[in-house]
Amino acid sequence: MSDVSVHLGPHKYGKAENRLVRITRDTARHEIEDLTVTSQLRGEAFADSFLTGDNAKVIATDTQKNTVFAFAKTHGVGSPERFLSLLAEHFTTEFEWVEGGLWQAEQHVWERIVVDGSGHDHAFVRTGRGTRLAAVQVADGGTHVLGGVKDLVVLKSTGSEFRGFPRTPFTTLPETDDRIMATSVTARWRFLPEAVAEGVDYNGVYEEVTAVLLERFAVVHSLALQQTLFAMGRAAIEARPELAEIRFAMPNRHHFLYDLARFDLENEGEVFIADDRPYGLIEGTVVRDGVDDAPAAWADVPTFI
Amino acid sequence: MSDVSVHLGPHKYGKAENRLVRITRDTARHEIEDLTVTSQLRGEAFADSFLTGDNAKVIATDTQKNTVFAFAKTHGVGSPERFLSLLAEHFTTEFEWVEGGLWQAEQHVWERIVVDGSGHDHAFVRTGRGTRLAAVQVADGGTHVLGGVKDLVVLKSTGSEFRGFPRTPFTTLPETDDRIMATSVTARWRFLPEAVAEGVDYNGVYEEVTAVLLERFAVVHSLALQQTLFAMGRAAIEARPELAEIRFAMPNRHHFLYDLARFDLENEGEVFIADDRPYGLIEGTVVRDGVDDAPAAWADVPTFI
Amino acid sequence: MSDVSVHLGPHKYGKAENRLVRITRDTARHEIEDLTVTSQLRGEAFADSFLTGDNAKVIATDTQKNTVFAFAKTHGVGSPERFLSLLAEHFTTEFEWVEGGLWQAEQHVWERIVVDGSGHDHAFVRTGRGTRLAAVQVADGGTHVLGGVKDLVVLKSTGSEFRGFPRTPFTTLPETDDRIMATSVTARWRFLPEAVAEGVDYNGVYEEVTAVLLERFAVVHSLALQQTLFAMGRAAIEARPELAEIRFAMPNRHHFLYDLARFDLENEGEVFIADDRPYGLIEGTVVRDGVDDAPAAWADVPTFI
Amino acid sequence: MSDVSVHLGPHKYGKAENRLVRITRDTARHEIEDLTVTSQLRGEAFADSFLTGDNAKVIATDTQKNTVFAFAKTHGVGSPERFLSLLAEHFTTEFEWVEGGLWQAEQHVWERIVVDGSGHDHAFVRTGRGTRLAAVQVADGGTHVLGGVKDLVVLKSTGSEFRGFPRTPFTTLPETDDRIMATSVTARWRFLPEAVAEGVDYNGVYEEVTAVLLERFAVVHSLALQQTLFAMGRAAIEARPELAEIRFAMPNRHHFLYDLARFDLENEGEVFIADDRPYGLIEGTVVRDGVDDAPAAWADVPTFI
Repeated sequence: MSDVSVHLGPHKYGKAENRLVRITRDTARHEIEDLTVTSQLRGEAFADSFLTGDNAKVIATDTQKNTVFAFAKTHGVGSPERFLSLLAEHFTTEFEWVEGGLWQAEQHVWERIVVDGSGHDHAFVRTGRGTRLAAVQVADGGTHVLGGVKDLVVLKSTGSEFRGFPRTPFTTLPETDDRIMATSVTARWRFLPEAVAEGVDYNGVYEEVTAVLLERFAVVHSLALQQTLFAMGRAAIEARPELAEIRFAMPNRHHFLYDLARFDLENEGEVFIADDRPYGLIEGTVVRDGVDDAPAAWADVPTFI
Repeated sequence: MSDVSVHLGPHKYGKAENRLVRITRDTARHEIEDLTVTSQLRGEAFADSFLTGDNAKVIATDTQKNTVFAFAKTHGVGSPERFLSLLAEHFTTEFEWVEGGLWQAEQHVWERIVVDGSGHDHAFVRTGRGTRLAAVQVADGGTHVLGGVKDLVVLKSTGSEFRGFPRTPFTTLPETDDRIMATSVTARWRFLPEAVAEGVDYNGVYEEVTAVLLERFAVVHSLALQQTLFAMGRAAIEARPELAEIRFAMPNRHHFLYDLARFDLENEGEVFIADDRPYGLIEGTVVRDGVDDAPAAWADVPTFI
Repeated sequence: MSDVSVHLGPHKYGKAENRLVRITRDTARHEIEDLTVTSQLRGEAFADSFLTGDNAKVIATDTQKNTVFAFAKTHGVGSPERFLSLLAEHFTTEFEWVEGGLWQAEQHVWERIVVDGSGHDHAFVRTGRGTRLAAVQVADGGTHVLGGVKDLVVLKSTGSEFRGFPRTPFTTLPETDDRIMATSVTARWRFLPEAVAEGVDYNGVYEEVTAVLLERFAVVHSLALQQTLFAMGRAAIEARPELAEIRFAMPNRHHFLYDLARFDLENEGEVFIADDRPYGLIEGTVVRDGVDDAPAAWADVPTFI
Repeated sequence: MSDVSVHLGPHKYGKAENRLVRITRDTARHEIEDLTVTSQLRGEAFADSFLTGDNAKVIATDTQKNTVFAFAKTHGVGSPERFLSLLAEHFTTEFEWVEGGLWQAEQHVWERIVVDGSGHDHAFVRTGRGTRLAAVQVADGGTHVLGGVKDLVVLKSTGSEFRGFPRTPFTTLPETDDRIMATSVTARWRFLPEAVAEGVDYNGVYEEVTAVLLERFAVVHSLALQQTLFAMGRAAIEARPELAEIRFAMPNRHHFLYDLARFDLENEGEVFIADDRPYGLIEGTVVRDGVDDAPAAWADVPTFI
């Protein structure tokens, strides 16, 4: 084997899933921010740790973890996009050999518990519609900011068809003009670099985009989950000028009409069995005309499966 | 080994996790009920299938599944407690050799998607505070009805102490007069048989009990998670005369103050790391004075771990 | 509500899922024991923490955790049953107000990595057939020891029938004399108190019982999953005189013959689709004749679902 | 909003997680192959379904599912790489408008149950070291074949150091010359196109590569998990001339020495607490010198997180 030679290809490393809970308690009315944060660094200087076990340049993953929690104190969170941007800025400027990296977060939603009709000062309940996602990517000298949402589970009990598809030798699916359509939306939107430079109201974008996605899902009469996906993405980009593009992964969570005719019962779209697997999986991107592609922004960011 | 003799002890069987989605579409404004239903039967007549493989009395698990979906059509759901009661009644009266059984359900919560300020007629989003639980147990000639909730995740950022515990040779935990208290509540309440006989507004009970549990969690200044648990249970029983008792399993989801002093930073209850395992696990029952015990009601119902 | 009175019912508390890894390194050939340990205490003295928040008797869950890890050093593990017994003995004798408790463990299996044909001294790979279970229950003045296994996933591709079941109005399942039978075995066996008193080779029992369970599953021509369950339990009790009884929960993981006739293809038991939900769920107990019942042994131990 | 214009970016669609179990029963000694298969198609012709809901070119995901199961009958599985290649060939040649796609599989391992010292003809138990992965990517006119493994969980109880890393203001981690190193290996290897063209013994590669990865993990004295990763990858490529490159994602599953000094106990690498989160996450690629990059091969294939 002595004549086989190899080299190191793409690599990165860091600390994953730091479970950060930040309480703001300047007044008796506390605020809570609950994030799972992942920090990973890239750079040629890290090759030595792979090749020879020389760690002289390795910012320990434990150090990255400490930094996440210290920054939560010194800088606050504000929004996951802002917080990750601060971490990215820190690591890529503080250590000259850090060339880039990927910082990711999930934000878990809490609402105030209602007591006597109003939200309590310091007691919260987990709820919400989906989990918020964010990522900041520093690559090729550029910085890319992504927002997003996952586990946004939606269903419409009518207003969905699926017809006109090719009938091949392996096609047995009947056409339908009325079915349940259900999916769990994962969406990631990329902010325009210009917008990032000017400053974005990330929380406002999140609220508006998720509302628009839901509204479109509800209102569009669907001829295909693909069509619904595109309509949702179009509406998001129309709603917020800060967005360059939006990517979706939408499983088609099948709800099959249960065959009750065997028991002499009608079933006009009333009784369904929800199936786990397999499921359709539709993935697509909606892009604002005229914006530059940014493949580096998406490197290693899980959206498409 | 020929002189070893054995016999069949407790047994039951059925179909687990039937994923039932029931749409009520009498008008353009649809209703959705989404349940995971488990049906299991008990009876001495089933012993033969264990002992000799004689299935002459075995209501096939597939038959139980068909029954669940057919009943969703013919009887509707209404509430998980009502629906399970109908199944229990059916199996124990239709087949004389069925002596009892356990029927369980989880109900998954959907809300209407908001479009132009009001809820859409047929488009829904998954959300909610916890997953609703129900169980109907037929045993020893009696029928017991249980309601419940799980995954009701709550947190308070102050108003929680833990002090005065014994200091043993293995005790290192410092006392605290201000900590985060967080838990994921699992609760099961048993309805009084008299109330069941008279007819219970199961959905009303669910709404009120979960609201009361949240309210107590928020308002009680906690000296121990145990104390909070008991106060929550007491309030639930005070609120609803239909309840005989309520059982809780409440993990203490630890949020540790992150040690920032190492970086010359103060951390007065602001930055926490949420830990997954191990976790405290507090289980307790609150019982209305004067009601009879009903151990059969709880057989094989997972609450305490 | 002032005239409603309540009291505290059954309760226990402790620390759950302590992830203990114990390395024995007396020689260069290390041994590894990897357990997830839960410790919970019962006693009337703990009522005060529920009723008034008085923690004077509350052995902190953090103290229980420390004890688990300290005992791993001072006493070693040996077997999960032995280790839990030591914890039970400690807590119930060291603190007079501890009346009982439940100690549970899962043991995760590691094998030595093979290098040049033999097992490495200190490098291991996770593998194995199922996860080992153990529980020690102290209740009503007695001590009960349970062994077990879960996630023992087995399948036979023939040698399984299901026929002769009643055809009711909701029965549509065809009879079959050749199907795939697949299940994930959860089994819990209770040791005879006399055997525990004399000393049991717990590891030897585990090895032999799991081997016997597998062997019976393979060899018995199955007329029903129930029949296979009973045969497995009978063989376990025949194999080991230390066992009083054995409980099983065995889901029937359905593998449906895929309908290929639609494509003019035969499918004689060759191509199956494995379904997730719903699934049959068969639960049963095999008891050695003449042994006393011990319901306290099973309190809060999850086997039957 | 009328002046905002958008277009469709990258997309694909198909059926995910088809749970295929294939029994070969030509003789009494059955063989089992158990795969979870995902099929997804790419092509500009699918844009219409997104843009207008016109499904005239949409090979229904249900059709893709039927094809998977039909091909299991007509072609057998053999290896996941071979089976996916057949699906890829079928879809891209049968339908001229299918330009490419991604086919993925996980293979679940079964072993024969041992009866009287030898493997049973038709009874199996799930076990194994990791789950096998495969993917076939058709993109840009080329076909790429990937093998792999995930959930290969390994641990060494000594022979691992971590020293010499920079001490920054946020660094608190002590250096260590003896720690537990544990990880769950995810690896994906890309086959050289020439090798694929000539025909690869995919099962032989899988067996040898996983054995070599384990052997290197065991034998290399580790100065960093990075170094171990690279050594594992190098050995795999040295072992099999068919491999172009291999990518790894290796979490550093921390095992912390439990602080027993508080109880006057020594702990010389004996008692550890395994932590869930956060965890180090090391990702890297080892590439054979002289082979061409193939970024298209990796599009949407989850390895790096």
